[in-house]
Amino acid sequence: MIEEKGILFVLSGPSGVGKGTVRKELFQHDTALRYSISMTTREKRQGETDGVDYFYKTNEEFESLIAQNKLLEYAKYVNNYYGTPRDYVEKTLAEGHDVFLEIEVQGALQVKENFPEGVFIFLFPPSLEELKNRIVNRGTETEELVLNRLKAARDEIEMMDAYDYVVVNDQIKHAVAKVKSIIQSEHCKRERIAKQYKQLLEDDIK
Amino acid sequence: MIEEKGILFVLSGPSGVGKGTVRKELFQHDTALRYSISMTTREKRQGETDGVDYFYKTNEEFESLIAQNKLLEYAKYVNNYYGTPRDYVEKTLAEGHDVFLEIEVQGALQVKENFPEGVFIFLFPPSLEELKNRIVNRGTETEELVLNRLKAARDEIEMMDAYDYVVVNDQIKHAVAKVKSIIQSEHCKRERIAKQYKQLLEDDIK
Repeated sequence: MIEEKGILFVLSGPSGVGKGTVRKELFQHDTALRYSISMTTREKRQGETDGVDYFYKTNEEFESLIAQNKLLEYAKYVNNYYGTPRDYVEKTLAEGHDVFLEIEVQGALQVKENFPEGVFIFLFPPSLEELKNRIVNRGTETEELVLNRLKAARDEIEMMDAYDYVVVNDQIKHAVAKVKSIIQSEHCKRERIAKQYKQLLEDDIK
Repeated sequence: MIEEKGILFVLSGPSGVGKGTVRKELFQHDTALRYSISMTTREKRQGETDGVDYFYKTNEEFESLIAQNKLLEYAKYVNNYYGTPRDYVEKTLAEGHDVFLEIEVQGALQVKENFPEGVFIFLFPPSLEELKNRIVNRGTETEELVLNRLKAARDEIEMMDAYDYVVVNDQIKHAVAKVKSIIQSEHCKRERIAKQYKQLLEDDIK
């Protein structure tokens, strides 16, 4: 009845919190979601397909896309670029499909700058006690390293402010249910759909 | 882990859209939700209990509560007052329970004024075509009455702007699922919970 653009959902959070597991479980349930295909300069491996596993680009092509602001976010790991192409995301959204990104906190903040209308979900560790214990209990680490890690944890919490939702990953199935609720309820947001309803009213009732 | 105040959810929409049916079905599934008990000046009927079915008040008591702004909304039907007591709602929320109100559009707008931090859900008829047909097909009505009803429909749509969410009541089970998603996702809103998480971090990691 209502023609609606898709919504970009971004799942992020501290490394080790379980983003990948939540994303995989979510995609088992939600077949309408489109996963954003990344772009990379690393070589295509056997069995991989361009436009399925990655969009493969040369270094020059990738850097030209950066210069043209054609990437929602990017980073360099081990001499290879990885990034999220803006065109693919925007085309998929325009076709009415939701797009789902699962990325690191730094990447998510880049996406937020380039695409503020996205919905940003912060995956949180099961408890801060546990986070602290995990850090302190690495017996081999110096006190300085422990302090650095505690500071990093604090910084990550501060970054929560850029997000719309916080989901605690206490149990995968609870976290997935919450992410699914967020996806469904975002489609009911009045500011997204009221305009189309009013337009229908204008068209219908004359 | 996180101590959280409850959230006030208000379900409203044009009369006849099916608010009561959606609310009843929702309460079959969600036993944590508290239904707001109304206050009334009408006489207690046999089998009814004060504080369960209604809070029963005299006319003088009710009007004194109105004067003290102790009602989130009220209206008068057939010489009796009906209203939503602010104290009961606030006490229940403070205890950590969500409160659910199912009321007419005018009442919902009063609640919005008195309690803007509530979450307002507008239940929408299955289609505007159907709404229009329903109005026009009442063969007995004069053209003037049809026009008045079309205008009322327009006005109701305009009131959507005061709401946070719009849920189409195409099928009860879809509408209920959406309301449940809204309830769950609102509890994940970063602005509701980030402060507590940060506080925990302050308490934990020192």
